[in-house]
Amino acid sequence: MCAFLKSLFEVHSPSGEEVNMKRFILNFVNANSDKWRVKPEIFHGEEFQDCLVLIFGKPEIAAFAHMDTTGFTVRYQDQLIPIGGPDVSGDESLTGSDDLGDIDCDLTINDEHQLHYQFGRAITSGTSLVYKSNFKEEQSYYCSPYLDNRIGIYNLLNIAEKLENGALVFSCWEEHGGGSVPFLVRFLYEKYEIKKMLVSDVTWVSDGVRMNDGVVISHRDKNIPRKSFINYITHLADVNNIPYQSEVEAYGSSDAREIQLSPYPIDWCFVGPPVENAHSNNEKISKKDLKSMILFYRILMDQLYLHNTGNNY
Amino acid sequence: MCAFLKSLFEVHSPSGEEVNMKRFILNFVNANSDKWRVKPEIFHGEEFQDCLVLIFGKPEIAAFAHMDTTGFTVRYQDQLIPIGGPDVSGDESLTGSDDLGDIDCDLTINDEHQLHYQFGRAITSGTSLVYKSNFKEEQSYYCSPYLDNRIGIYNLLNIAEKLENGALVFSCWEEHGGGSVPFLVRFLYEKYEIKKMLVSDVTWVSDGVRMNDGVVISHRDKNIPRKSFINYITHLADVNNIPYQSEVEAYGSSDAREIQLSPYPIDWCFVGPPVENAHSNNEKISKKDLKSMILFYRILMDQLYLHNTGNNY
Amino acid sequence: MCAFLKSLFEVHSPSGEEVNMKRFILNFVNANSDKWRVKPEIFHGEEFQDCLVLIFGKPEIAAFAHMDTTGFTVRYQDQLIPIGGPDVSGDESLTGSDDLGDIDCDLTINDEHQLHYQFGRAITSGTSLVYKSNFKEEQSYYCSPYLDNRIGIYNLLNIAEKLENGALVFSCWEEHGGGSVPFLVRFLYEKYEIKKMLVSDVTWVSDGVRMNDGVVISHRDKNIPRKSFINYITHLADVNNIPYQSEVEAYGSSDAREIQLSPYPIDWCFVGPPVENAHSNNEKISKKDLKSMILFYRILMDQLYLHNTGNNY
Repeated sequence: MCAFLKSLFEVHSPSGEEVNMKRFILNFVNANSDKWRVKPEIFHGEEFQDCLVLIFGKPEIAAFAHMDTTGFTVRYQDQLIPIGGPDVSGDESLTGSDDLGDIDCDLTINDEHQLHYQFGRAITSGTSLVYKSNFKEEQSYYCSPYLDNRIGIYNLLNIAEKLENGALVFSCWEEHGGGSVPFLVRFLYEKYEIKKMLVSDVTWVSDGVRMNDGVVISHRDKNIPRKSFINYITHLADVNNIPYQSEVEAYGSSDAREIQLSPYPIDWCFVGPPVENAHSNNEKISKKDLKSMILFYRILMDQLYLHNTGNNY
Repeated sequence: MCAFLKSLFEVHSPSGEEVNMKRFILNFVNANSDKWRVKPEIFHGEEFQDCLVLIFGKPEIAAFAHMDTTGFTVRYQDQLIPIGGPDVSGDESLTGSDDLGDIDCDLTINDEHQLHYQFGRAITSGTSLVYKSNFKEEQSYYCSPYLDNRIGIYNLLNIAEKLENGALVFSCWEEHGGGSVPFLVRFLYEKYEIKKMLVSDVTWVSDGVRMNDGVVISHRDKNIPRKSFINYITHLADVNNIPYQSEVEAYGSSDAREIQLSPYPIDWCFVGPPVENAHSNNEKISKKDLKSMILFYRILMDQLYLHNTGNNY
Repeated sequence: MCAFLKSLFEVHSPSGEEVNMKRFILNFVNANSDKWRVKPEIFHGEEFQDCLVLIFGKPEIAAFAHMDTTGFTVRYQDQLIPIGGPDVSGDESLTGSDDLGDIDCDLTINDEHQLHYQFGRAITSGTSLVYKSNFKEEQSYYCSPYLDNRIGIYNLLNIAEKLENGALVFSCWEEHGGGSVPFLVRFLYEKYEIKKMLVSDVTWVSDGVRMNDGVVISHRDKNIPRKSFINYITHLADVNNIPYQSEVEAYGSSDAREIQLSPYPIDWCFVGPPVENAHSNNEKISKKDLKSMILFYRILMDQLYLHNTGNNY
């Protein structure tokens, strides 16, 4: 598992360049799906830009994990502008490549809080850079850049093994304003009438959410879902003895924002583990919380399907 | 009427929990629609989340009233975070309920402008609270929390009685970022080809809009509608001798925002009375302005239908 | 050409009142399309609000030019509020008309940075005003208010002459929050399966983008397109020896924002010339950059069609 996680973390996929992560996941699915309980139908290509959708059986619920990460675009001279909202201190190492070859450079912040790179040559304008890979496993924790959202992807690839009915959805642009969830929701609703969606992503530690206290069920962030659905998800965690904690925030967002604003009547819930140092090059997650996430997603995908209640919870 | 208004004002329905208001309206419709000129077709349930749509005859125009109110979510400890943009001074009484029972507590604001509750016990995280009901009738005014938007609902329930052709739409999440208008517009356009929509909601008193000067026709707020449609609405107010005033603002928004941004070619206009102390627990409206609102909606729903101009005004 | 440009610049079409520009373009098309290689199918009217779409042959790529401009709405008394983001210094002349007749007034800015008009009489609330027309041709430059986006329109009307396959799209509300691109994209995708879109608009001079260095291909602004598509556009500029420059910005937006967020899997690229003094009444553009824009659009519309790659670039 650790080797797989490490390789997952080395994929270069800032918003706009998720194609690399799509290929990685596609390779994994092709290599492993013969052993899965149900072999999924795979959707990608022209109608999906760089997104990927796996359909198992008769899906009534979809789980979304975004494939993109924050990062930096080279502007002019040695200037960098952010992709999404990376949280930098000024001593980060960045990697990428342009037409002249591979890049391994340092990020600096000047007195006016502007970002620059230091490298032995000029980098082509428009090139994207990301935090250098730095995966570490401790006894109870994983540390790495971009746990957000390789953990969400990892969760979905784990539950794929035994999934009988459901859609696993790998989306783009979550860190930078969105743009793929609208057509993914349209596809899922128009083709399968899916009206329940889970967001497989990470959140942050706060004064109400702690490491090792279990997977987080979000009651709200900047977006407010339908309360009856959240209550039902929480009920399923209770009756299945899942270690979980409830999150209530005024800020923050996820793929759920575009699900909420889509022209379809979809209920959604964010379910994922907390990380420390979010959007830095040293995000940290508890193995225990990740375990309760995977356990809960297996149950949710089954029980939201089996006990189908329409959307009257 | 006053008893009905009072009961309307007591429904707990902050954004995300509009289901209570939906049930209230549904009960009213079921109890009264036998006496209406046309008995409407009722749409709600699985394809509508907590929204409600009434279809009368052959609709070519829809009027929207949002069912949700601003409010507060209990975060951790005694912290509150806002739902929408409530305007508080720090001496408000709030109500709600959690798994331990009914809640009647006080809101306080600390030195860092953070919101807290004072109550004899801890309230479950994720619980919603709203201003305590406080409806007052004066000779020429109504005062209450949440005139916004029970007045808009009241208007639609009034015009239902004699409506022959039209759609009355009760929406969710208007106070907190939206999320239901997109699928409601899709339903109205795909099923009925409705291309004209009115927003039945309240606006605020300003240096150009005064109490008792009549219903407000908005030329723009943060959103700019098609000017030809606004001119036509204003023309209908003129020829029908409706007391009205024109509003022109750079800020503010309504369900019209999501109508404007929908993937359908819809003309819209905000038509509603001004209130004082908007989003406080003491909103105030003139009976005279409310009367001109109801009068004008009856005419608009008829005449926009009878003199159907396509959308070339 | 200069007389045509001058008449194009005199059309009053702030956001919400694009109907005048639609009629101007429609007249031009009706007067000239007999001489074009392909006579386009024209879409406008009830299903398009004030927008206009020209369909040539079997379109697989669409080019968008917005018809609206920034401007000002008369609020109450002598107050003005902006339409979009005009950049004013306080000595601008404005024009418009209300029910009392034509208006030719002066804009002033008070000490609190609020905008007012000076005119011999009161102007009706809700009236729109725009910069007074002031087109100047220099040897190598054009100067005028509202090069943004009459240049984008001019470009599309130029390439119409020899266009065999493609959609030319004239949109509304780009300067003020959008609202037409969503239904235009829906039309183009649902009816023609168009999945590639170009934005024919102007950008600004910066420390990386200079006058006379050629048409600008934007790698990103506030929105980030799919990098593989941008690389392909850049490749076409290279192999066709188009004078061009690459832009990389953190801010700014265009019709592309709504293309990106639409519920369809569309690739897009902003391609247009830089202007100086953007959104002022004295925008300036290089004839050379405009020439390379028109040249490149002719090639793009052909070669994106001929070398159709699905959307795998």
